[in-house]
Amino acid sequence: MAESTAGVGRRKILSALGVGGVGLAVGAGGVLSAQAVTAASQEEPAVADTVPFYGAHQAGITTAVQDRLHIAAFDVTTDSRDELIELLKEWTAAIASMTAGQEVGGDGAATEGSYEAPPEDTGEALDLSASHLTVTVGFGRSLFVDADGEDRFGLKDHLPEALNELPHFSGDQLESSRSDGDIVVQACADDPQVAVHAVRNLVRLAFGTARVRWSQLGFGRTSSTSTSQVTPRNLFGFKDGTANPKSEDEAVMDEHVWVSGAAGGSAWTNEGTYMVTRRIRMTIETWDRSSLAEQETVIGRTKKTGAPLSGGEEFTEPNFELAGRRGPLIDENSHVALAHPSRNNGVRMLRRGFNYTDGSDNLGRLDAGLFFIAFVVDPRTHYVPMQTAMAKNDLLSEYLRHTGSGLFAIPAGVSEGQYVGQGLFEAA
Amino acid sequence: MAESTAGVGRRKILSALGVGGVGLAVGAGGVLSAQAVTAASQEEPAVADTVPFYGAHQAGITTAVQDRLHIAAFDVTTDSRDELIELLKEWTAAIASMTAGQEVGGDGAATEGSYEAPPEDTGEALDLSASHLTVTVGFGRSLFVDADGEDRFGLKDHLPEALNELPHFSGDQLESSRSDGDIVVQACADDPQVAVHAVRNLVRLAFGTARVRWSQLGFGRTSSTSTSQVTPRNLFGFKDGTANPKSEDEAVMDEHVWVSGAAGGSAWTNEGTYMVTRRIRMTIETWDRSSLAEQETVIGRTKKTGAPLSGGEEFTEPNFELAGRRGPLIDENSHVALAHPSRNNGVRMLRRGFNYTDGSDNLGRLDAGLFFIAFVVDPRTHYVPMQTAMAKNDLLSEYLRHTGSGLFAIPAGVSEGQYVGQGLFEAA
Repeated sequence: MAESTAGVGRRKILSALGVGGVGLAVGAGGVLSAQAVTAASQEEPAVADTVPFYGAHQAGITTAVQDRLHIAAFDVTTDSRDELIELLKEWTAAIASMTAGQEVGGDGAATEGSYEAPPEDTGEALDLSASHLTVTVGFGRSLFVDADGEDRFGLKDHLPEALNELPHFSGDQLESSRSDGDIVVQACADDPQVAVHAVRNLVRLAFGTARVRWSQLGFGRTSSTSTSQVTPRNLFGFKDGTANPKSEDEAVMDEHVWVSGAAGGSAWTNEGTYMVTRRIRMTIETWDRSSLAEQETVIGRTKKTGAPLSGGEEFTEPNFELAGRRGPLIDENSHVALAHPSRNNGVRMLRRGFNYTDGSDNLGRLDAGLFFIAFVVDPRTHYVPMQTAMAKNDLLSEYLRHTGSGLFAIPAGVSEGQYVGQGLFEAA
Repeated sequence: MAESTAGVGRRKILSALGVGGVGLAVGAGGVLSAQAVTAASQEEPAVADTVPFYGAHQAGITTAVQDRLHIAAFDVTTDSRDELIELLKEWTAAIASMTAGQEVGGDGAATEGSYEAPPEDTGEALDLSASHLTVTVGFGRSLFVDADGEDRFGLKDHLPEALNELPHFSGDQLESSRSDGDIVVQACADDPQVAVHAVRNLVRLAFGTARVRWSQLGFGRTSSTSTSQVTPRNLFGFKDGTANPKSEDEAVMDEHVWVSGAAGGSAWTNEGTYMVTRRIRMTIETWDRSSLAEQETVIGRTKKTGAPLSGGEEFTEPNFELAGRRGPLIDENSHVALAHPSRNNGVRMLRRGFNYTDGSDNLGRLDAGLFFIAFVVDPRTHYVPMQTAMAKNDLLSEYLRHTGSGLFAIPAGVSEGQYVGQGLFEAA
């Protein structure tokens, strides 16, 4: 088999097989509609497993969540604004290629370029499909001003008011080497090797201009962003993200995710959003020794179906008033109660997190948990108040330890010929 | 969709959809035969995506390599032989359940057990299929004797001669916290969440008896163990494992993988094998700046098709005599030359490694590479000589750093009613 496909470009292989769309439907979600398989196996033209790169918004936000994540934050090491812009241009071209299932530098770049030069593409994704790869780029506050508040690249006047450092939340145990960063790159794909290949090649292009500050792999999505996706389970064994808004609900996206006009203080953020990242280690061993009753009380939902403890099924709206023998059926400090819009001035966040496991610590405990990612129109209204309340009161906090944190402004999407972040640099 | 499947056991969901076998065909390999999809979407009975647990040999060795890995080594913390045996019995039952796509403790254990007790299964794999899960258990030298050579559990007389510590190889930079261990558990599955779930639940059962010494996730297979699989690429961007023996070649398996009789010095190892693990970090950044010529010279194959530099296609036998203008076309210290059976007394090893990426180090370099796993009939003949030569002469060594190492005796498979390792404890 390998020989018969050798030498055929990535896109051609997938197209010839006509099954590009299948792999992604069967990943972490695990439940696959029979229709999807039937459709893919017919003689119809292939469903491409590419996500369009160009558009008003960047991909990887409302895109149906892929199965795997590789995210990296960079510190910019150059002082040159021109070099920074050049990097963003090179990244844009590379991302456009990779998300189309092509090599960085074009077909053949990994294996047929100049024999005396390093190949432009590193090659480990050569035989793999695009796997719904998306790459989403954002800017941290430290790209605009240094620790002393000095302008680094002439961008200070365009620092959005919303791009403040997140406050210290009760119980935070943040590690500097897992937090912040000048630029973030989120690569999501259904095949982890495709996501790793994307980050690795962007790291490579950044050599001499920016270097990795932290990076994280996530192996299983913990939310759905589309009504077409089933709700996955997190490492507490519970369905996660049941109440997540779905991208099909454009009114919610417009109100709670996408920045409109100069909201947050800077016009370049129009059509963009803000990304909050939190590396949340779960104290798995403690959780695993707690009773089913405790677990369900803490979450406020049943473990089996994800239905609220007030009754019904997974998507039944929780009833916080309904009383049982020992008080409300749903504890007022349960996770579902504290996260509910009714307790948060009606705000909603688009969660797009991933389960992670990073080996074990020196006490033999698994370093596992949730790499939380959320996209919000303004972190000051849509994240900070909720997290402040949760960190103090959430029954779940006992089982969580926040070890990393980041906040990034995600610029609008690009059209052909533009580079990502161009609006910021042309504004400034 | 989620609601309609809620409350239905794992096996039923997959069976009803009739697509259990699809997901695994589309993983890291990336190339999927159209026939596989067609077959799965017909009204025929489902192809189960389970690998049989019971058998003469343990699964996860000659099993067609799954896409993802979670491997953990344990230190036994009890002094009690009975507790150790009890753990192996509990593990055996749990592995039998999980590899059949069932919950630890049986259907409903995660969500419907005693409300006042911790659930027997942690639940995060509830909606997922078996995903070809295999769990392979092995014993390290330190289970038999402690650092002073003292018998720990009455097993010393049955310590196989072949289960010696590996020697120090030139260039080794081993970290104790990534090396060795009393017991190893290798979980492989096409869905990483299924592999992580397996290890996590075994860790949990071990509480008070054994604890994790190290663990490692691998996201992409780097070899094929079956003629039905295409050759994947490693993080050097090259096809890896082209010359790997295939499980269909039973004569090779019998000669080079499976222990027969009392080979290696102890009868309980009959039908078993030895597992070598090496965490091999790749100096990605250096590699990525080397020319295509250098890369191909070091490997001895073309990057594009994996053909030996002496010509032909991927599976063409390399010709080490064929001369080019500047000497042999295949450098005598290339990886393909040093690994070739003709340079190693005809020995072959069954490689079953995985690509890994564990974030980045404090210099911003990706901590990425190969988690090497090989199964051999005797490490003294089938691993140590080759690795000694490679560590000294392999051109590739410049781009590699071995940071972890392990050697484990893998006992035979079990029949229903037995527990894994029973042959050892009954012999002793």
